[in-house]
Amino acid sequence: MPVKSYDFVKGLLEDYNSLAIKTLFRYIPELEPRKYLYELVSSYPGRPGKGFRPALCIATCKAFGGTESMALRSAVAIELFHNAFLVHDDVEDDSDFRRGDKTLNAEYGIPIAVNVGDAMNVLSIRPLMENLSLLGPEMTWIVFTEIEHMVRQCVEGQAMELGWVHENDTGLTEEDYLRMTLKKTCWYTIIHPCRIGALIATSGEADPDRFNRFGYYLGAAFQIQDDLLNLIGEKEKYGKEIGGDIWEGKRTMMLIHLLNSSEPDEKQWLGHFLSIPRRHRNPEDVENVYRLMIKYDSFGYARSCSRNLAGAALKEFFTAYGALPDTRDKEFLYRIVLYMIERDL
Amino acid sequence: MPVKSYDFVKGLLEDYNSLAIKTLFRYIPELEPRKYLYELVSSYPGRPGKGFRPALCIATCKAFGGTESMALRSAVAIELFHNAFLVHDDVEDDSDFRRGDKTLNAEYGIPIAVNVGDAMNVLSIRPLMENLSLLGPEMTWIVFTEIEHMVRQCVEGQAMELGWVHENDTGLTEEDYLRMTLKKTCWYTIIHPCRIGALIATSGEADPDRFNRFGYYLGAAFQIQDDLLNLIGEKEKYGKEIGGDIWEGKRTMMLIHLLNSSEPDEKQWLGHFLSIPRRHRNPEDVENVYRLMIKYDSFGYARSCSRNLAGAALKEFFTAYGALPDTRDKEFLYRIVLYMIERDL
Repeated sequence: MPVKSYDFVKGLLEDYNSLAIKTLFRYIPELEPRKYLYELVSSYPGRPGKGFRPALCIATCKAFGGTESMALRSAVAIELFHNAFLVHDDVEDDSDFRRGDKTLNAEYGIPIAVNVGDAMNVLSIRPLMENLSLLGPEMTWIVFTEIEHMVRQCVEGQAMELGWVHENDTGLTEEDYLRMTLKKTCWYTIIHPCRIGALIATSGEADPDRFNRFGYYLGAAFQIQDDLLNLIGEKEKYGKEIGGDIWEGKRTMMLIHLLNSSEPDEKQWLGHFLSIPRRHRNPEDVENVYRLMIKYDSFGYARSCSRNLAGAALKEFFTAYGALPDTRDKEFLYRIVLYMIERDL
Repeated sequence: MPVKSYDFVKGLLEDYNSLAIKTLFRYIPELEPRKYLYELVSSYPGRPGKGFRPALCIATCKAFGGTESMALRSAVAIELFHNAFLVHDDVEDDSDFRRGDKTLNAEYGIPIAVNVGDAMNVLSIRPLMENLSLLGPEMTWIVFTEIEHMVRQCVEGQAMELGWVHENDTGLTEEDYLRMTLKKTCWYTIIHPCRIGALIATSGEADPDRFNRFGYYLGAAFQIQDDLLNLIGEKEKYGKEIGGDIWEGKRTMMLIHLLNSSEPDEKQWLGHFLSIPRRHRNPEDVENVYRLMIKYDSFGYARSCSRNLAGAALKEFFTAYGALPDTRDKEFLYRIVLYMIERDL
């Protein structure tokens, strides 16, 4: 049964994602300058991605009685914004790999990567403007407002996380982590794609706050699972360097758990390790952080948090979608919850 | 007479700029996270700036019969976008000083600076959305369209310039430089502020293309003068490190003139100098580039280009504004042309 259910989820996810990506490419101008701008704008969207965000937006729109094409432009804008965010995130984290290939900053340097991300952000405005003819001025406006909130939450979450690394904060709690994740991940990955889909389908009638708890639980479960895969996944499937988060000193739930569980001398050593600039850390020390995470079962702890959050998301699913007629898209949205935290890539 | 005329320009410029900056600060949330986000968002707008862009937008709106408050929100959005652009530009150019103080990247590192720039970009959406109640949906929409074009031109120009440095291009012409400057500087510094001001004042009746030549000439004259000040200005007035553009290998009109004027052995040496990463260049070599620019009178050449362009802008002023009744704002717009290229800071 689980295998079959994931086949269904994977199939529809792939359908929605390829539709969104195909449409997204129509918004990348075939103009100069190509070599250091529009060709690079195509780079991340052209690599294999999972496409959760456009799929959640389109499926929610359909589950609420709308059509694929009503949500498509907004889904494309969200996906474009997501890719812009990844480009800048890779600069900010000094990452080398993304979706199985070199990051733009690793290949072309920071200046060009920053500018490409800026270009992707401005390109995401066009599909939102084209909502006008299909959805009318009022709904176009509502979607704009949603997107503005989404992007603002995202930079706020990013600022929290970057501030922790900048100050080498070793006194964080699980609550700090979850608050940061709500801002950095949950709004733009789950909550806003669902809100926008439902608002469009119902001409603004559906109360979009119904998705806030569902999206918070699911987004946090997803982020913890993503961070776990970064540490214990397979590079070929995951597409980034395994252990990159430890090299970066990223405050994951596992690292926070470790800092709060370890003995004083270990914590002191960890604080010292985290104070060293990324490029000066050495593999033996990174290995040692792993060993400590195993010693204190930080992986197991985070995995169980992720599962609990996913359980809460499944429960909240009924608040968000329970009253709707049973459709293929509603089924998809229910099943994607477990898929997002049990996936191995 | 000239002194008096600049007093008038400076006075009104200061009035419009302080109004725009005061209003801009209202759009910076007084929320967490402050330390690494919203406090830093305030950093560049809080430093002494010239404020040409909001002043051009407001003055043009008034010259076309509109009011200050009709243009104010759009002027604020343009100024916020401009400041976001400066933050990312400083990251991209690895600059250390801006408006008399350390750049955000120099003080807080690249990751935090990139994210602060992203935040400023998203914050510039809010004043544009608030146009709705004052200007109605149609004009709000027109302004959005203008801004989208403005930002896209800007990232295209930036990509051209970054590509030249990335490839260490030493075969550029004056036409390449002017094409890049049109995209990178003219649209967002002159053309769009004027277009938006006139469109708002006339409910979209004025043909905004009337400003395209005026803004191209004035913007190019302004950029060349700005690059000249970077090389031969006074640090206290200019607010950036003098000669920074040579350290960066920036393709200014002076550098392009020098590359096209120098003897083969000098050109070869210049090509080698430009191939060295910025932080590995040494002061003696930078000094030598200066000497060569003096030898070939690249400064004089650029200054005369800037003056010719300003002359063309003055002529185009009459196409853009000539038919309007004589007002204080029309006078201001005429006089600002020479001020923008004769200023020493």
